[in-house]
Amino acid sequence: MSIITLTSDFGNLDYRVAAMKGKILSLNSKVNIVDITHDIQAFNLIQTSYIFRNAHKYFPKGSIHILSVDSFFHKSRKNIVYKSDGSYFLAADNGLLSLIFFDIKPEAIYEITLNSRFDDIVSFTSTDIFVPAAVHLANGGLPEVIGRKIDSVKELLFPKPVHNESERMIIGEVMYIDNFGNIISNINKEIFEVASKGAQNFTIKFRNLSLSKIFLSHTEVVSDWERETEYHGQSAAIFNDSQLLELTIYKGSKKNGAKSLFGLNVGENIYIEFF
Amino acid sequence: MSIITLTSDFGNLDYRVAAMKGKILSLNSKVNIVDITHDIQAFNLIQTSYIFRNAHKYFPKGSIHILSVDSFFHKSRKNIVYKSDGSYFLAADNGLLSLIFFDIKPEAIYEITLNSRFDDIVSFTSTDIFVPAAVHLANGGLPEVIGRKIDSVKELLFPKPVHNESERMIIGEVMYIDNFGNIISNINKEIFEVASKGAQNFTIKFRNLSLSKIFLSHTEVVSDWERETEYHGQSAAIFNDSQLLELTIYKGSKKNGAKSLFGLNVGENIYIEFF
Amino acid sequence: MSIITLTSDFGNLDYRVAAMKGKILSLNSKVNIVDITHDIQAFNLIQTSYIFRNAHKYFPKGSIHILSVDSFFHKSRKNIVYKSDGSYFLAADNGLLSLIFFDIKPEAIYEITLNSRFDDIVSFTSTDIFVPAAVHLANGGLPEVIGRKIDSVKELLFPKPVHNESERMIIGEVMYIDNFGNIISNINKEIFEVASKGAQNFTIKFRNLSLSKIFLSHTEVVSDWERETEYHGQSAAIFNDSQLLELTIYKGSKKNGAKSLFGLNVGENIYIEFF
Repeated sequence: MSIITLTSDFGNLDYRVAAMKGKILSLNSKVNIVDITHDIQAFNLIQTSYIFRNAHKYFPKGSIHILSVDSFFHKSRKNIVYKSDGSYFLAADNGLLSLIFFDIKPEAIYEITLNSRFDDIVSFTSTDIFVPAAVHLANGGLPEVIGRKIDSVKELLFPKPVHNESERMIIGEVMYIDNFGNIISNINKEIFEVASKGAQNFTIKFRNLSLSKIFLSHTEVVSDWERETEYHGQSAAIFNDSQLLELTIYKGSKKNGAKSLFGLNVGENIYIEFF
Repeated sequence: MSIITLTSDFGNLDYRVAAMKGKILSLNSKVNIVDITHDIQAFNLIQTSYIFRNAHKYFPKGSIHILSVDSFFHKSRKNIVYKSDGSYFLAADNGLLSLIFFDIKPEAIYEITLNSRFDDIVSFTSTDIFVPAAVHLANGGLPEVIGRKIDSVKELLFPKPVHNESERMIIGEVMYIDNFGNIISNINKEIFEVASKGAQNFTIKFRNLSLSKIFLSHTEVVSDWERETEYHGQSAAIFNDSQLLELTIYKGSKKNGAKSLFGLNVGENIYIEFF
Repeated sequence: MSIITLTSDFGNLDYRVAAMKGKILSLNSKVNIVDITHDIQAFNLIQTSYIFRNAHKYFPKGSIHILSVDSFFHKSRKNIVYKSDGSYFLAADNGLLSLIFFDIKPEAIYEITLNSRFDDIVSFTSTDIFVPAAVHLANGGLPEVIGRKIDSVKELLFPKPVHNESERMIIGEVMYIDNFGNIISNINKEIFEVASKGAQNFTIKFRNLSLSKIFLSHTEVVSDWERETEYHGQSAAIFNDSQLLELTIYKGSKKNGAKSLFGLNVGENIYIEFF
């Protein structure tokens, strides 16, 4: 049973997600459809790439992934398929796949030609182009039948952290805030290790707060499990599964509608000073 | 593998949606369950009909659709099945199916008699009545076994747009606000074309804003794709997939919790003046 | 086709739920994955137990249930499996299963040993421990292979209602607020019947409101269905499916972002006075 995953900014109220599922099942009733998420912020490619990068690696080889974010049809923009490690990834040529695969070279890239030469307007790219192409691939069809090989796609880059060597400082920013209100930054372990060479200590600074230790996991914060409740509410920095610096509050959760545990917003700066 | 779709105002937190799925799988573990949405506003039949009308047409013939909105059990209200174009639609006799099929005559209508003659209270219509009836139909059972043919159901009507010929004006209202904050009105293309006969221009008015052009799609707003970002934030009116007048902001999204892009609420008036 | 259900406080935006689904399908592509809910409030075990108790009883025997709430890995805490009535329930040893099964003795309890003796940190309990254990059980594997029998687990108790006999009063509290804004209390029918012996009347008091009747269902509020709309907005108390006292407003729904119909919060007191 082939797997097609769906990722979008459509939300779960509108008809759009159901339309995609109905169309898939109309073409092949045996496809296993799995939602990644439909709660992406409208048009937010950075958020999409962070979530999808972490999710797709758990899926079996051969899965087909549809990414319907910023994918409204227009004639002067391609729709593309990446083939990588036995799986396929479909999206508009808006830079999203370059963000997801910033460190991986795909085996092949195709422009989707199926249903893409309409003289009239394609009303809904996801059902009219992505779904038929994905079902073709899920059925074992060759990508060459629904597309043509291309060499280049639109490139986007993540905002990169800056290592200011003379000031002995890393300047990064908030990239994503997760469901628990944890702050995920763009500061990776690699740049931290380079910058920390020769330094004895460091301070992580954001807003008017500072931290001077990085843990290896959320629960490493607790050193005495007999008194675990005493640690509730303690601030901590960790390197998360993606090796990115994450700011968290042990057993914290968003209260009063605050988006993040520390009141930080996406794009705000986080500094690490070495000394 | 038969398909049963679920649409409700139960939300995804409560146990109710999971209860329906568990009950379906207890009766037939091979049914393919697909969510349309469970985020319908409590008891909102207009919203349900707009979303469901747009979604169900993508599903294969023979699908069974359960609509659990305003379906609390009471003895003096029927539960009904519509049969149309090879598919079945189950709902309480609250007018919802008449809204969905306002322009289609169903092949047959049945009152569900299965489990509906309890002497005691049916605690949860969806699991006690809709699910067993739907699974019976999904198994290929005849509707006559779980129901009896009836001729009439409760009728509801959409609020209709008004064409005031002497004032050369259409008066419509906001019917639905989608996940992106787009405003979908009840003004359809048909009434617009009738009203616009002999007119040279028109102005769409709402709040203190006005628009004088209707596009054929969201992306038609952009006439020069090299400078696409310059169009971000531009207001536009389009006739959407349902041929309804929709107000949108190109690449707009709801900020600061505003429900719609223009601050409009469901039920507020939209005017088109011809001259 | 085996069923694995998922319940968590991960939300539907983050990658975590999709990661679990991808991992399950990587191990056994034929498992039928069903979401109970992922919208549990962070770490809220009382809410989880109320929702899950009501949901799981609808699922077929032999289902495998993963409960990923407050399940961050730490070395000094077990992960456990309950076996009960042919089904399996996996959770961290945080007291959750004792809340769900407060009135049922499980057939057997196991500590999960699979993947739990890592020398390094388990980054994500759900994909690293729960999923492989659940798929093993879904494949018909014996629990002894992935765990070892244990006798006791961490016990948690619901806040219990108090029957003050001298004051002829029950003092309970709000335990859960559902999607419609209905207030579910911890006052069960049993304690009510004991306390009401010899009394002729009672008054339910909360905030500055009072009710003096308990209905058997939401729709019993309406005594004349010809004039059903006149009952909209009427306050009522009922004993719900779980035999718990529930406060509701007929056809009410949450407006203006109020969490509950009466403005009550979880933990607030509800009193019943008998006289």
